[in-house]
Amino acid sequence: MSLQHFQAVNPADGLAFGVTYPEQDRAEVEATIARTFATKGAFAALTLSARAKFLDAIGAELESSRTSLVEIAHLETGLPEARINGEISRTIIQLQLFAAMVRTGTHLGATIDLADPDYKPVARPDMRKVNLPIGVVAVFGASNFPFAYSVIGGDSAAALAAGCPVVVKAHPSHPGTSQLTYQAVQSALSKEGLSSDIFTMVEGRSPEITHWIALDEKVSAIGFTGSALVGKLLVDLSHSRKTPIPVFAEMGSLNPIFVTAAALAERGGEIGGALFDSVTLGSGQFCTKPGLIFLGAESEDFLAAMREKMKSVGDQPLLNKGIAERYNNSISDLSKIAGVESIVGSVNEVGFRVPATLFVLDYATYKAHPEFSHEHFGPTTVIVKCVESDFAEIVEHSEGNLTATLHLGANEKEAALVNALSNIAGRLILNGAPTGVSVTAAQNHGGPWPSSSTHTTSVGTDAIYRFMRPVSYQGFPDELLPPALARTNPEGIARRTNGVLGLE
Amino acid sequence: MSLQHFQAVNPADGLAFGVTYPEQDRAEVEATIARTFATKGAFAALTLSARAKFLDAIGAELESSRTSLVEIAHLETGLPEARINGEISRTIIQLQLFAAMVRTGTHLGATIDLADPDYKPVARPDMRKVNLPIGVVAVFGASNFPFAYSVIGGDSAAALAAGCPVVVKAHPSHPGTSQLTYQAVQSALSKEGLSSDIFTMVEGRSPEITHWIALDEKVSAIGFTGSALVGKLLVDLSHSRKTPIPVFAEMGSLNPIFVTAAALAERGGEIGGALFDSVTLGSGQFCTKPGLIFLGAESEDFLAAMREKMKSVGDQPLLNKGIAERYNNSISDLSKIAGVESIVGSVNEVGFRVPATLFVLDYATYKAHPEFSHEHFGPTTVIVKCVESDFAEIVEHSEGNLTATLHLGANEKEAALVNALSNIAGRLILNGAPTGVSVTAAQNHGGPWPSSSTHTTSVGTDAIYRFMRPVSYQGFPDELLPPALARTNPEGIARRTNGVLGLE
Repeated sequence: MSLQHFQAVNPADGLAFGVTYPEQDRAEVEATIARTFATKGAFAALTLSARAKFLDAIGAELESSRTSLVEIAHLETGLPEARINGEISRTIIQLQLFAAMVRTGTHLGATIDLADPDYKPVARPDMRKVNLPIGVVAVFGASNFPFAYSVIGGDSAAALAAGCPVVVKAHPSHPGTSQLTYQAVQSALSKEGLSSDIFTMVEGRSPEITHWIALDEKVSAIGFTGSALVGKLLVDLSHSRKTPIPVFAEMGSLNPIFVTAAALAERGGEIGGALFDSVTLGSGQFCTKPGLIFLGAESEDFLAAMREKMKSVGDQPLLNKGIAERYNNSISDLSKIAGVESIVGSVNEVGFRVPATLFVLDYATYKAHPEFSHEHFGPTTVIVKCVESDFAEIVEHSEGNLTATLHLGANEKEAALVNALSNIAGRLILNGAPTGVSVTAAQNHGGPWPSSSTHTTSVGTDAIYRFMRPVSYQGFPDELLPPALARTNPEGIARRTNGVLGLE
Repeated sequence: MSLQHFQAVNPADGLAFGVTYPEQDRAEVEATIARTFATKGAFAALTLSARAKFLDAIGAELESSRTSLVEIAHLETGLPEARINGEISRTIIQLQLFAAMVRTGTHLGATIDLADPDYKPVARPDMRKVNLPIGVVAVFGASNFPFAYSVIGGDSAAALAAGCPVVVKAHPSHPGTSQLTYQAVQSALSKEGLSSDIFTMVEGRSPEITHWIALDEKVSAIGFTGSALVGKLLVDLSHSRKTPIPVFAEMGSLNPIFVTAAALAERGGEIGGALFDSVTLGSGQFCTKPGLIFLGAESEDFLAAMREKMKSVGDQPLLNKGIAERYNNSISDLSKIAGVESIVGSVNEVGFRVPATLFVLDYATYKAHPEFSHEHFGPTTVIVKCVESDFAEIVEHSEGNLTATLHLGANEKEAALVNALSNIAGRLILNGAPTGVSVTAAQNHGGPWPSSSTHTTSVGTDAIYRFMRPVSYQGFPDELLPPALARTNPEGIARRTNGVLGLE
């Protein structure tokens, strides 16, 4: 029995409100995982069409709860209602995209090599390979995306689409939103006649819960979006297990921006304004926020546009007290460094509101202070005045990032720089901003360490492959094969047979 | 400068012979890795056809050195010449299969989603994703496959096909074979006009070399086939790095065999004979050797066939002194356990020759002694007399395996057992033996921990994906895109554009 409880806190005033939520103890967490584990076989055996229908049903439930979801999420996160509405739409679309993929069976990667007595160097038996669900996936909800990367966000949708039961660790910054979302998934399970234990949730603020989940032998993989601190803890916990499991941690990044002299000369003001918007979008709480901007030349237009935007931006509500405190400490420390110009926005001293802050410094100061190349979550960025010939050195010393952005002049072709950037990021953007992550097959949201723990994407349909593992069947008759590999191909999926993709 | 040297040892007589090979020191190893790293950009930029031509050229060089390769490998490994010849053929075919794959560009996974102002929830920019080579791959050669999993074996071929330069740690059990193979690759590099540093090799017996390589920041991934001890060490070393890297370790397994009562009644003798051959193939030094055989009923035919085979099998030369010593210790320990029948073959007391050994015991004895569920490398297996209703419990308590094999009666359909086996192995075999790993697209050689460190295959063309990482390009013109993503599709590869696979 839970003895502890906690309440939600409204970032707008910093006050606790509403009902209490249970702080679950170890026995409850382990029992929840055991219940989830028990559904593994049956959920894996669901037909593709039934699984797709379930994913669509979740989307429909979210749509019918939209008004209540927006209301509670706004109170718990301080995010504007329009943003929340957009995020709910994205979450529903993510489910629909995975449903569409599941219907095609593409994710199963069905590959068949027929028996061949003349195969070299030795005769080949009948070999059939398919991707199977990996088992129970534990998903750690993120605070900064209360829908798209929380209870039934990208990780959960990908895991369910793969055929894996899911246990969610709800983020305690939005417990009511999490509960309402969880109930939407439960309604979908019920309407589709599926076990309620296919999708479970554990709640609490204790850091110990993370350990209990990550060390549970019934958990086969972890999906995580959040801080480098917790991401690395999960990787360490997995490594300490008797049977280590894959940890797919998206741990944020600096998302460096490189602006050439020609780009600044041609459209310095425009670029400055657009990047200011990207820095302050969602109060700077996106994992793709530009945290470092390298200017290849002096540009009064660029800085003037940012200063002008700063005048009207207003204060920025952060998601919770911890994030607000860390932000205020960061900007206080950075602003004390000699040679750094701080441009600070306005703030009401209410709740978790903070001022947007820009730091402007030269390259020597940047190099002398490693604090500038740490991620500072919130509406702040570091603008480094350098020269284009510094870019190669900067890239060479950069850690891994989710994204890297390049702004070029109209006639510039910086192929060597683009190639160098491909070594330090998972997505490259030309003449744009890194915020705004399109949910699409060609998306890659995940970059070299420490931005991500593995070379996989957590956004877009390819995210499903994180939660599957290949198994080959040698010499089996149809009755003992997964449907995807049976000679009758009962679900009519595309398969690669003797190297040729088709319905054979 | 290397001060230490070592010689090869002939397993047939246990004596050192031939020239001396250098024991490389840390400075030499690091310098070699640095030279390899320097080729990364140029090798990644090679056209697909040039890379495929290089892979085929290596195969041709191996073919032209075949006679010398067989001669030295036979002396260094004690493996029969016919086996070595077959393995060289397999190694060449592996290179040819990767060359064919590279020519198609399939491995690049080129995915294009065109800009779409009406995309939901927000307008979509032009997004293009491709798999890029991961960087320098360190390959640790295995002792038991002096070609197919050594210097230019499956890991090296996959890495080169992916566009990654390779540094090989030669296995000190076959230094001359390694040198001659290395020279064949160097000839191919030279003939194709490529830098000799794309493919390098370090040598020595010191365990420290493993640490120097695994901790070098210029190494981006590791391919390993060998013992669980060294595989886990590599995983630990990667975990201790500032930037952890993927370690693809194939660490062997028990490859359990389940034979039902009906199968034993119908063809117990035939199955026993075939499994005996599988156990002793290559002196039991395959990672797919059946190490545990569970009989669902008493079967005199099965055991009689094995006893009969034992009479004529002769002694078994092992690869090196360490393997022979560990084998002798293992069988000595197991044979002392009460209630265990040991069936021991003959042996000449020369070199690293050992007797084949079968252990026969009941299920209670098996459960009481965990030593029986450890891997014992060499020509030995454990035969457990149980009943079919024990199979579910055995599978439930099994660790991960590369393979699991099921022998069924003609009219049996054990779907639940097949499903359970899919949880503990990466390849399932019906009515066959696990040794003999077909090199094909539908192959999966890799199973749950501890048989492998990741859910990937190290055999077959899908092995290439271990050494690639996805990168997305947002809003780029053709001149700044990798050729695989350019609108002109200069290499004519198949790409998935807006969800449709084709040449667009």
